[in-house]
Amino acid sequence: MTMKAFQDYYSDNFASCFGCGRLNEHGLHIKSYWDGEESVCRFQPEHYHTGGFPGNVYGGLIASLMDCHGAGTAYAATYLNKGSKTDSDPPSRYVTAALHVDYLAPTPMNETLELRGKVKEIRGRKVIVSMTLSVKEKVCARGEVVMVQISEDSLSK
Amino acid sequence: MTMKAFQDYYSDNFASCFGCGRLNEHGLHIKSYWDGEESVCRFQPEHYHTGGFPGNVYGGLIASLMDCHGAGTAYAATYLNKGSKTDSDPPSRYVTAALHVDYLAPTPMNETLELRGKVKEIRGRKVIVSMTLSVKEKVCARGEVVMVQISEDSLSK
Repeated sequence: MTMKAFQDYYSDNFASCFGCGRLNEHGLHIKSYWDGEESVCRFQPEHYHTGGFPGNVYGGLIASLMDCHGAGTAYAATYLNKGSKTDSDPPSRYVTAALHVDYLAPTPMNETLELRGKVKEIRGRKVIVSMTLSVKEKVCARGEVVMVQISEDSLSK
Repeated sequence: MTMKAFQDYYSDNFASCFGCGRLNEHGLHIKSYWDGEESVCRFQPEHYHTGGFPGNVYGGLIASLMDCHGAGTAYAATYLNKGSKTDSDPPSRYVTAALHVDYLAPTPMNETLELRGKVKEIRGRKVIVSMTLSVKEKVCARGEVVMVQISEDSLSK
């Protein structure tokens, strides 16, 4: 049995995100899961995901990982917060209002990146998620996203 | 005669960035130019660069554009600031210390995105660049990057 990722609960109409949409055949297919109180996402960059300096991962990829892992964490946290399960397939999703990344150290290529997320605040429709990105337990970047809940229905009109 | 972009002056050893490296055959090939006091970058997303909501551009792509346009602007500004030209091919580059993006409105697909950058501050090895991303003159996102100058030599060792 394979554990379902947060993003696997998104409805088909909203599963085409380049970062995390399971239906985007050109996309990154970012997947997030719970690990206790934290959310975790592991990602193996492709050989071409290099930054300006050889051997280091592209900063834009790191920002992308934080965007989708943050959105997924907000989504999952909302339904856990309500006491429901993520498989209730609720008709709402999160859009990113703000994204901040601090690049603390070069992120080496040819390694699995591990993102860990924590819900910092839930207030009304707004969820703030803080994250780290580590390689072999060394934190290479920290980030924070502000996510805002939007009804899928309102966006389909 | 074709105008040379900032990124076209990067030396071959440092031209493999997924975002803006001319030698990365899988990359985005982001290009930046001066337009008076501002830097400008125009980018046409591919059909698969969609976000979680159909018809809108992926936020991670927007962050990537700001990262590379900001780095290019810092690079060009440094050499203009010194009174030299960008074609002196100097052995230094910028790495991103911090990236912030505010997503103000959905960014529609099938349009050319226009990023405009301004140097907000140059202090020692640090350059701060603020940017907007617009579609048909409507600002859809604002961003700011903190770039730090690094010698290519020190990174090659």
